[in-house]
Amino acid sequence: MNELKGAMIVGQSGGPSSVINASCYGAIKAGLDSDCITKVYGAANGIVGVLTDKLYIMDEEDPEELALMRYTPSSALGSCRYKIADPDVDDTDYKKILEIFKKYDVRYFFYNGGNDSMDTCNKISKYMKRVGYDCRVMGIPKTIDNDLFGTDHCPGYASAAKYIATSLVEVYQDAHVYDKGQVTIVEIMGRHAGWLAGAASLANITGYGPDLIYLPEVDFKMDEFLEDVKRIWDENKNVLVAVSEGIHYADGSFVSEAKTSATDGFGHAQLGGLAALLANVVKEQIPGVKVRPIELSLLQRCGEHVASQTDNDESFLAGQTAVKEAIAGTTDKMVGFQCTRDENGYNCQPVLLDLSSVANYEKKVPVEWINERGNNVTDEYIKYALPLIQGEIQMKKENSLPRFVHLKKVVAAEQ
Amino acid sequence: MNELKGAMIVGQSGGPSSVINASCYGAIKAGLDSDCITKVYGAANGIVGVLTDKLYIMDEEDPEELALMRYTPSSALGSCRYKIADPDVDDTDYKKILEIFKKYDVRYFFYNGGNDSMDTCNKISKYMKRVGYDCRVMGIPKTIDNDLFGTDHCPGYASAAKYIATSLVEVYQDAHVYDKGQVTIVEIMGRHAGWLAGAASLANITGYGPDLIYLPEVDFKMDEFLEDVKRIWDENKNVLVAVSEGIHYADGSFVSEAKTSATDGFGHAQLGGLAALLANVVKEQIPGVKVRPIELSLLQRCGEHVASQTDNDESFLAGQTAVKEAIAGTTDKMVGFQCTRDENGYNCQPVLLDLSSVANYEKKVPVEWINERGNNVTDEYIKYALPLIQGEIQMKKENSLPRFVHLKKVVAAEQ
Repeated sequence: MNELKGAMIVGQSGGPSSVINASCYGAIKAGLDSDCITKVYGAANGIVGVLTDKLYIMDEEDPEELALMRYTPSSALGSCRYKIADPDVDDTDYKKILEIFKKYDVRYFFYNGGNDSMDTCNKISKYMKRVGYDCRVMGIPKTIDNDLFGTDHCPGYASAAKYIATSLVEVYQDAHVYDKGQVTIVEIMGRHAGWLAGAASLANITGYGPDLIYLPEVDFKMDEFLEDVKRIWDENKNVLVAVSEGIHYADGSFVSEAKTSATDGFGHAQLGGLAALLANVVKEQIPGVKVRPIELSLLQRCGEHVASQTDNDESFLAGQTAVKEAIAGTTDKMVGFQCTRDENGYNCQPVLLDLSSVANYEKKVPVEWINERGNNVTDEYIKYALPLIQGEIQMKKENSLPRFVHLKKVVAAEQ
Repeated sequence: MNELKGAMIVGQSGGPSSVINASCYGAIKAGLDSDCITKVYGAANGIVGVLTDKLYIMDEEDPEELALMRYTPSSALGSCRYKIADPDVDDTDYKKILEIFKKYDVRYFFYNGGNDSMDTCNKISKYMKRVGYDCRVMGIPKTIDNDLFGTDHCPGYASAAKYIATSLVEVYQDAHVYDKGQVTIVEIMGRHAGWLAGAASLANITGYGPDLIYLPEVDFKMDEFLEDVKRIWDENKNVLVAVSEGIHYADGSFVSEAKTSATDGFGHAQLGGLAALLANVVKEQIPGVKVRPIELSLLQRCGEHVASQTDNDESFLAGQTAVKEAIAGTTDKMVGFQCTRDENGYNCQPVLLDLSSVANYEKKVPVEWINERGNNVTDEYIKYALPLIQGEIQMKKENSLPRFVHLKKVVAAEQ
């Protein structure tokens, strides 16, 4: 037994999800329950909170209120999109982090986020090793995009998928109500990977779902898209299309590109307005047709009320596992999932993956899970995703509205 | 007892809601259970189905499957936006309706919709009286807009309100996650009445809700809006705004007007794109600010999964009451609600209102329920709306997705 006593910091980074707080609470709870961990700090706005010495003392929170964190969407500690420098180029941030780690005797650092966050995690871990500061660093995955390498799926993905599938089943009802049909185009998040757009296909299990689904894994061809829409319009006088915000032409340019110039903090193009753009193209091609563009927008990543309990349980487990493993001596790993789907049902076990193997790779939907025409996913996708969205969320309600956590957020530096 | 034996038709009209099918099922079920009613027909796409002799035989449906209609959003029989002529100007439609009524021995006609539908209902009733055809005509209200005259509230409103309030609580979490704040502008349905936009205020009960709410009952002043946003931005570096699509300037022109030219079937301007428009104005005024426009779009009226069980129960009751009252001899009425909210809690009773008094009046949010600055609602609104959204929906799920009704839709004319 390689016992290391000291405080822990957990931080959250990147875009929100419905279950990132479930993971974070899993880590906090395991930390509070452990004799090895002397104090549990939550970093305000991820690594930014470490750099600015803004750490919330989780030990000061009321345990019952804190437990509500598990069913609160978005990042209760606050998030950031801060990109940490390469330490070989500029080690200013790392020196500051080390100073804070020493100030609070931090021996455990847990970072809860997506690709970029695992990269941050990996860099900090390597730096601490280099300077000989004994600290165990673990990544807790989170991304609705589901694009982290090496894990069967990512916490947060399934809840967003469930929101999308549920909304599509419901939008189908609405879109089919009038005697004069319409073309409905639903825009779904996902910059480079089509995992979320693919989730629209789950709606079809209910008998009510999209006719066409476009993912960014294959090149988008506007002429084929219009052919597809016209063909289905001629047959049914109604077309429901699900489309990933990240669809692009063969030359790599985003279909929505003309509409956007802003970028997020990591230099990614910020997409949006694609559904409206496609709606206009369809209107020009099918005279007199009614076209309704819908952007699912932020709600798909913060819709706690229709989250997957499976996702929540697994996310909690991921956070808990990270802390337990770190206490047992593990470092430099991300908690991933290894899953089986067979006649015995669905089984999911946590596994430990090297941080360096995870960071900055993007896992996409296998091309063989997309049909030949490139306008739908196959049954392989359904088999993969359906078990993940199971289980109704056990969220607390008051007045029939969500009862989300209210943290005291006592700042350590102000004590 | 004024017994009238014969068939009944029920039709649905106007925009969908989460509970219009609950009302319709209430009427169908009461019809099927009654000895007086010989056959229950559902009109395909409302009055259009009557005019085109497309009537579904509800007696042919499997009762267990049919019961799922109660928890299926949108209009399971199909809807229309067909505006029936004034019989004094053109009685072609009325002659056709009479022909169909005679063909199927229809002695009961129930129409499930909003303002325009009650007008249709009223005209048909008057025509049948004039030509001496014995038929009882009843309106079953439905409108998420909540603008029907004479009733405490309208079936469908509360479920949309609950969707809006829930989404606002969740969007709040998402919008407050980053260290660098943002202005979030959520666009909510409601052409002339602000009942739905007001529902955003319910979110504040949870401690997480909008800072500003703009309703169409008061004139919108762009300069005051920008002042409000800037003031809150300076204080909190975060602003959450809820705004009705129908806000307009003092001269009556819609704020969103420049963006729209299309109209719906009744000649109303079709609104939308307002959030994006306001977002652009804010961006110009507060340099460097991140602004996120969100349009709740169709989902607010078809989001069954977060509907109000109170709304569902009352909607079912409204449909059932219409049929029972008609059998008992009533005609020319709409079922409304009379409610009390006091120390004994909330109580709702069905009442019968004259169709002619209901049709074509629009009930708006009382101006005294809007604060002086015109940027929020008062506690009076909360007291009114909160009881309506209570109760979790008892919707059936399969595979953790909504299990909506699949009707056989056997057409009478094809038998």
